[in-house]
Amino acid sequence: MSARLNLIGIGSGNPAHLTLAAIDTLNRADLILVPRKEDKPALADLRREILARHLKAPAKIVEFDLPKRGGDGDYLADVALWHDAIAARWAELIAAHLPKGGEVALLVWGDPSLYDSSLRIAARLGLKARVEPGITSLQVLTAAHCVPLNGLGGAVWLTTGRRLRADGWPAGAESVAVMLDAGGAFQSVDPAGVTIWWGGCLGMAEQRLVSGKLSLASAEIIEARRALKAQLGWVMDIYLMRRETP
Amino acid sequence: MSARLNLIGIGSGNPAHLTLAAIDTLNRADLILVPRKEDKPALADLRREILARHLKAPAKIVEFDLPKRGGDGDYLADVALWHDAIAARWAELIAAHLPKGGEVALLVWGDPSLYDSSLRIAARLGLKARVEPGITSLQVLTAAHCVPLNGLGGAVWLTTGRRLRADGWPAGAESVAVMLDAGGAFQSVDPAGVTIWWGGCLGMAEQRLVSGKLSLASAEIIEARRALKAQLGWVMDIYLMRRETP
Repeated sequence: MSARLNLIGIGSGNPAHLTLAAIDTLNRADLILVPRKEDKPALADLRREILARHLKAPAKIVEFDLPKRGGDGDYLADVALWHDAIAARWAELIAAHLPKGGEVALLVWGDPSLYDSSLRIAARLGLKARVEPGITSLQVLTAAHCVPLNGLGGAVWLTTGRRLRADGWPAGAESVAVMLDAGGAFQSVDPAGVTIWWGGCLGMAEQRLVSGKLSLASAEIIEARRALKAQLGWVMDIYLMRRETP
Repeated sequence: MSARLNLIGIGSGNPAHLTLAAIDTLNRADLILVPRKEDKPALADLRREILARHLKAPAKIVEFDLPKRGGDGDYLADVALWHDAIAARWAELIAAHLPKGGEVALLVWGDPSLYDSSLRIAARLGLKARVEPGITSLQVLTAAHCVPLNGLGGAVWLTTGRRLRADGWPAGAESVAVMLDAGGAFQSVDPAGVTIWWGGCLGMAEQRLVSGKLSLASAEIIEARRALKAQLGWVMDIYLMRRETP
């Protein structure tokens, strides 16, 4: 294909977190693909709002339903099949709407480099890709709590809820940031000496923040998460934990 | 003090990486402090360029020389003294230029949450602080190389050159990103199965990229780093490494 894919990081809920370069790339696109997730309609709404606000001229915008991920088999195998299905959908849309090639834009939640698979999906198609960085939810979290990600000169472990549950607190880690948690993986951690900074629906109007000693904040976070899910039908949350070094 | 400090992440060299929120915060400031580092004049130039381009009305801009860090004693003790000195300088400037309080803006390289000490320095003064996130050099690195920071569902270890040399490759880590390297800490790592993506002066006109098997790329990176330093008088570089899991 002679199309080039521009993966544009659009931040994590706050349309003011768009960069000037992202807006510029958006305006140079010949085709803009907007994925819809049935269970998270607010995410497509945000993409529509960004387009309405920042496109300086009419553009070819195509919305599509993101294939659903199977959940029956092995996690990594399910994800690989899901990425195959998304790649096929992209190829179909590009062939239909941009048969002579050109610049395709895809609006990516957060930053295309962090727990996003667009680059891996693009690689399946042999598509040329460009990345425009965007503000991640991790940066929105630390900004909202006014807390640094790392301790002074210290290291940070970025991981997923799944990995935290499976592997436990990484040996020698002071700061641990957790994304993609299906819910409450911090409960699997020994809370002694651990402080947590948590955020749900970061950057959005519904944003909720909780912080404090993990032993005390844990129940409040579980409840805040439950309330957000009851309100919206879905929830995305992440957190940073830091363990005091004796 | 009744002043409030707005720490504004301005990205890592590319003025187009500014977010709309950062520009807005800049324009609401009553006082803008611009630090100068004697050995890195290009960084103050970038800050001046951003102000010239994005301020919609004349603002009170005060440049100041950043105190120098002592290098004789223990690293953490030297850093603590240095932060004390910077805090004293900020307090002096705010008292002189904003005696009745108001919004102070400080332009921070990258994002105030990642290997930046502005939040710790503000805490010394008991200053109220707000953070506006910005694109980090890590995001510019992964975007430039078109590579994800994490492996699929995998964890990432963010660390410093100093820590990598001292602690070695973290147990169980697949992806390791290194910042604040005084030069070539990747040479302390067993290169077997390791791929590296390196960037020097990321986001700037002088940007250099090298990637490949660590065993092969190592010498090329050392040389590219040396050449940048010879050209500019200074260099900032970071890298991501990933080890194949058997």
